[in-house]
Amino acid sequence: MTTVPRLTRRLTRQESLALLGSASMGRVVFTHHALPAIRPVNHVLDEDTIIIRSHLGAAIVGHTDQAQGAVVAYEADDIDPVSHLGWSVVVTGTARLVRDPGVLERYKDVLRPWVDGEMDHVVSITPDLVTGVRLVAGEPGP
Amino acid sequence: MTTVPRLTRRLTRQESLALLGSASMGRVVFTHHALPAIRPVNHVLDEDTIIIRSHLGAAIVGHTDQAQGAVVAYEADDIDPVSHLGWSVVVTGTARLVRDPGVLERYKDVLRPWVDGEMDHVVSITPDLVTGVRLVAGEPGP
Repeated sequence: MTTVPRLTRRLTRQESLALLGSASMGRVVFTHHALPAIRPVNHVLDEDTIIIRSHLGAAIVGHTDQAQGAVVAYEADDIDPVSHLGWSVVVTGTARLVRDPGVLERYKDVLRPWVDGEMDHVVSITPDLVTGVRLVAGEPGP
Repeated sequence: MTTVPRLTRRLTRQESLALLGSASMGRVVFTHHALPAIRPVNHVLDEDTIIIRSHLGAAIVGHTDQAQGAVVAYEADDIDPVSHLGWSVVVTGTARLVRDPGVLERYKDVLRPWVDGEMDHVVSITPDLVTGVRLVAGEPGP
């Protein structure tokens, strides 16, 4: 395990979204039965909108009004477990079920479900707050 | 991108905690300013208790009574971004700041902070609900 702490460099919104788009998976964070919940999913970016597919779609958007949507977080990272170098991006945004049949068809084509089984939903997450950090090597202490 | 969906195999609590213990990092999920929040951190397991170190310790446990603690989720995974084979473990549990000086000293010794800077806290998460899945290869469809 490294004992030299890493330095954090804040990324811009644009840099963060570019890194998110370079990854194929992340984790969606939502509230389920009043408890914090998290699931790994794969994603694509459509402009700046995060598109995920999950059989938990209905739970992710909750019992909210479809127009209003539900506030969720979405995180992706690529941090080396040994060197601790890498990046992490956290988006806070609004999740809505995608219902338009044409749009749905297009997304289902580019976003294959990982796992067998239950019927799934396509969920769009419109980013409000985007934060990202890159962990870079610091100087060894004295 | 693979087009053969993976099969999910549910893991037992014991299998899940063993996988969590085999990983050095995960993501803590908490509520911050009434919004879902998530941060990657490194961890160690002390028996079944997850120990993390973060300068966000105070935010993670929130304004709750120390004895009562705050409900958080903790997730670790190791999923291959291409083959989509791997595992994911999600723990829902109670987070508390570790304050006992002796215990604190011991944890700070085994759990080095990743990043430079701000003063950090040691947080213990006592698992209540532990779920885990392993993604295994399915048979190609017809």
